[in-house]
Amino acid sequence: MNSKETGDVILLAHGDGGLLTHQLIEKYFLPQFKNRFLETLTDSATFPSKSGKMAITTDSFVVDPIFFPGGDIGKLAVCGTVNDLAVSGAKPLYLTASFIIEEGFPLSDLKKIVISMAKTCREINLPIIAGDTKVVGKGQADKIYITTTGVGYILDEARLGYNRIKPGDSVIVNGTIGNHGLSILVERESFRFDTAIISDCAPLNGIIQKLLKRFEGIKFMRDLTRGGLATNAKEIAVAAGFDIWLDETDIPIKKEVKGITEMLGLDPLYLANEGTFLTVVSNKDAEGVIQLLKKHPLGKDSAIIGRVSKGKGDGDVFLKTQLGGSRRLSMLTGAPLPRIC
Amino acid sequence: MNSKETGDVILLAHGDGGLLTHQLIEKYFLPQFKNRFLETLTDSATFPSKSGKMAITTDSFVVDPIFFPGGDIGKLAVCGTVNDLAVSGAKPLYLTASFIIEEGFPLSDLKKIVISMAKTCREINLPIIAGDTKVVGKGQADKIYITTTGVGYILDEARLGYNRIKPGDSVIVNGTIGNHGLSILVERESFRFDTAIISDCAPLNGIIQKLLKRFEGIKFMRDLTRGGLATNAKEIAVAAGFDIWLDETDIPIKKEVKGITEMLGLDPLYLANEGTFLTVVSNKDAEGVIQLLKKHPLGKDSAIIGRVSKGKGDGDVFLKTQLGGSRRLSMLTGAPLPRIC
Repeated sequence: MNSKETGDVILLAHGDGGLLTHQLIEKYFLPQFKNRFLETLTDSATFPSKSGKMAITTDSFVVDPIFFPGGDIGKLAVCGTVNDLAVSGAKPLYLTASFIIEEGFPLSDLKKIVISMAKTCREINLPIIAGDTKVVGKGQADKIYITTTGVGYILDEARLGYNRIKPGDSVIVNGTIGNHGLSILVERESFRFDTAIISDCAPLNGIIQKLLKRFEGIKFMRDLTRGGLATNAKEIAVAAGFDIWLDETDIPIKKEVKGITEMLGLDPLYLANEGTFLTVVSNKDAEGVIQLLKKHPLGKDSAIIGRVSKGKGDGDVFLKTQLGGSRRLSMLTGAPLPRIC
Repeated sequence: MNSKETGDVILLAHGDGGLLTHQLIEKYFLPQFKNRFLETLTDSATFPSKSGKMAITTDSFVVDPIFFPGGDIGKLAVCGTVNDLAVSGAKPLYLTASFIIEEGFPLSDLKKIVISMAKTCREINLPIIAGDTKVVGKGQADKIYITTTGVGYILDEARLGYNRIKPGDSVIVNGTIGNHGLSILVERESFRFDTAIISDCAPLNGIIQKLLKRFEGIKFMRDLTRGGLATNAKEIAVAAGFDIWLDETDIPIKKEVKGITEMLGLDPLYLANEGTFLTVVSNKDAEGVIQLLKKHPLGKDSAIIGRVSKGKGDGDVFLKTQLGGSRRLSMLTGAPLPRIC
């Protein structure tokens, strides 16, 4: 037997709260995640709070495959939750991470994932202060699932809400759409293309904080994850009670994403993104927002892609097509791409 | 085809962030969990914060079976996280819940679980303010896994820490041990016994808050989940640097639990509990703590079960047996009971 067969995998006993659980925490998690909150491990982590308004969000990540071009389930689990806080106008402060791992999962893969999470957290100065690990039997999970929860303070400058959205506002995205969803699909199906499709997976809190501090005309933000641009625009339109008109010509899409989605019969408007957000901005601030975005690595492909209009109050989303027509966009229905995040 | 085959189960599309996800949230989650924080659904929930010290904890629940005598995975997911906050001296304030559901899972079972979570939350006035749902394919999860994260303020009265534990302190439990672990095992294996074994699954925040407000001699608390009394006592002893002597005669165990564990060759000291906690108390407050506990439904079987002693600094845990001997207790190792919580 080689070492792979003997001991370098997750065992059921790694999840029983006993000795192996302790060893797993001490050998794999603590060395990477180390921060002062983890110096004493008790039933919960404590942190000082101040008077203000806090935000909290939670997400489970079940992406398949767990490693993909541009990221992995660990990086995704950090970015996804960070981005939900960021688009809510919050500065992410603390993260928790809970792992559900399939028996037999290679410890070397766990290590890669934990290192990736720790690296992403270090880049944005975000400590993981509490966690949990459960192990389920072979065939009771597909490798590893991670649930992260993030808390942060709402920035003083953030005044975001559906109720601030008004006809005439500009709709902006910070980058090209469809990259994450397509990269997952291509990797999962082992398609071979000349150009690599790379996920946009990235933490957006830095760039968003810059925008909020500078422009009071930023009225609403949403990261374009599950359901993609179309579903999220529709949700915003319905909640605001106004229509949104998107201009297909202005929506930034990488040439290779356009080509491959056309070939596969997929609509990039419905593909998930993990480092792309939509902003609704007062018209007067729109050009300024674009200028600031263009200077940032995560905003160089930013564009004004549409406008809010009064409509009939149903919250319709229309796409002005390149051919000059228009089509109404609905929420994602039917054939889903499961386990995209 | 009957309705069970056509539509009353979780589909992959319930997790794609599109129309079915929305319907699931609106039909199954919101009516039960309703609270003012869920009135506007955005990327994160916000709540007012005050100056103080907060606690946060997260846990994934993968218990098998999902319904068991005395509870279900939903009640457990609330109690488990609430109890981690409570034994940290925190008053639970907000909860998040994230669901990973297997394709084909009956919506009727989801409804039961959600109702159970909502009922437990109502009893302790704890709103679930954020959540997520992911669906994985058939065979990629075993029915349903739930991750909860809880936040709360540390009570002013709570001064808990390993560093307060001193030789001579009393060790107290609030009730009989082994009930949860054994109930899961009996239910999973479909054993038939004359007496039902019922999980102790319960939220401990109420009784713990009463204790903390009354007795400054409460130095440390720990809920006796995975690994049971023995593993948790060992962890505490090691962290405090003192020995703990437990007296087998004084440890409360239900007669039927004693009988069945003996028959099955299990040690109740290592079985998980979900409504039982250990308290280290200064000797002068020990009797008072017992008196207060006895008046509470969750403390009527409480007992002083041991004492902290100086030892050699290794943090040993010894059990004085009923026969007058003593044995050293170590952490749970080897044959685990997987998916106990």
